Amino acid sequence: MNLLLLRPEEIAPDGTARLTGRRLLHAREVLRASAGDELRAGVLGGPQGSAEVLALSTTELVLRATFSEPPPPRPGVSLLLAIPRPKALRKVLPAVASLGVDRLVLINANRVEKSYFDSRVMASIEELLLLGLEQARDTIPPEVIVRERFRPYVEDELDSMFPDPVRLLAHPAAAAQTPPAAGRAVLAIGPEGGWVPFEIALLEQHGFTPFTLGPRTLRVEVAVPYVLGAISRSRINP
Amino acid sequence: MNLLLLRPEEIAPDGTARLTGRRLLHAREVLRASAGDELRAGVLGGPQGSAEVLALSTTELVLRATFSEPPPPRPGVSLLLAIPRPKALRKVLPAVASLGVDRLVLINANRVEKSYFDSRVMASIEELLLLGLEQARDTIPPEVIVRERFRPYVEDELDSMFPDPVRLLAHPAAAAQTPPAAGRAVLAIGPEGGWVPFEIALLEQHGFTPFTLGPRTLRVEVAVPYVLGAISRSRINP
Repeated sequence: MNLLLLRPEEIAPDGTARLTGRRLLHAREVLRASAGDELRAGVLGGPQGSAEVLALSTTELVLRATFSEPPPPRPGVSLLLAIPRPKALRKVLPAVASLGVDRLVLINANRVEKSYFDSRVMASIEELLLLGLEQARDTIPPEVIVRERFRPYVEDELDSMFPDPVRLLAHPAAAAQTPPAAGRAVLAIGPEGGWVPFEIALLEQHGFTPFTLGPRTLRVEVAVPYVLGAISRSRINP
Repeated sequence: MNLLLLRPEEIAPDGTARLTGRRLLHAREVLRASAGDELRAGVLGGPQGSAEVLALSTTELVLRATFSEPPPPRPGVSLLLAIPRPKALRKVLPAVASLGVDRLVLINANRVEKSYFDSRVMASIEELLLLGLEQARDTIPPEVIVRERFRPYVEDELDSMFPDPVRLLAHPAAAAQTPPAAGRAVLAIGPEGGWVPFEIALLEQHGFTPFTLGPRTLRVEVAVPYVLGAISRSRINP
């Protein structure tokens, strides 16, 4: 936890906040904070800054926060991701939050098991995103959208959801290397078994340009940061 | 397992191999192979191709392999990595093998706990690398070098170990963005708490150029593929 995240409703009009639970425990046991210390803090969905520890007991952490800095710059990338197996999704959610992805669409695909949509991880999405924000000192979580039908989503919804961005399709067998990274982008990453030809054709019809980063088949939790690194290189420092 | 890896000594002069254990189990239960099937296979440290299933029982998998293809191209990158906590190292080892890293130096750093060098993961390095090779269909594992003293390694050994490559130092607070990715590179990635100033100064004295991919502090298992993606973009398709 490199940033203590507060929800707007936790902050009283005088700037103080009273925390219990995981954040109290972290302040006590990991940060070993005491009254007078300054902790790095931010407000979910808003600015960040520091928080002075006013009091810290076994039951409560009382802070007074001052938020004057913007969250870190974002690479301007959204992901259309074939929903991975639950164990991988549990790693991918904090990762995409820490990398500043704007929007994450978890989509069905032919080589995805339908049961993935019912996994217990799906009930922990927000919590897993917060872990990633705390790690990267960000306050803006990715918007997560879940769609259980691939074709209707691509045909009816995708254009209005992403009206302008460059559309890229990571595909090991593609002929082209990464296109230039300019403007906002939406990046499609398939399941570990790959998209099927129908899915690739439909994405291409909807403006996605296939590109390859080489023939290696990567685990999704490795592929996501690797591909984001490759396309984000010129995006990080605005 | 996208590639069945054989050790050279497992292959008889007539090209057959008899396997038990994990690979037998995988062929039976995941691939549901039977006699006559062709499996994708490779020889550790050598070429790859296919293997015909000659027989498959509950106790043995008998194959005849033909290896005629080279392993996939490599990005030409080595890592100097502050040894991560065991749980992260367990994820990083298969990841670096799957990404085709040439050499991984696990090094001590000020913000590393000395006990990490004694973790049980250190006894499983080879096994974890093989998982990554099987995933990415590669046959060449990274060479892993473990050094418990930072300064003597950098001062006395690093130059001869990496005589020519470009030396890069990933550091969130650096002023420069990623330098151009040309030639072989060795990339230093610090602990999650960062390198201390002495370590940065020593690496800079030894030719490492600091660069930043933005201010986000990433978990090492996210940072490694992300940074490799950023510097590897022009390296993957030779």
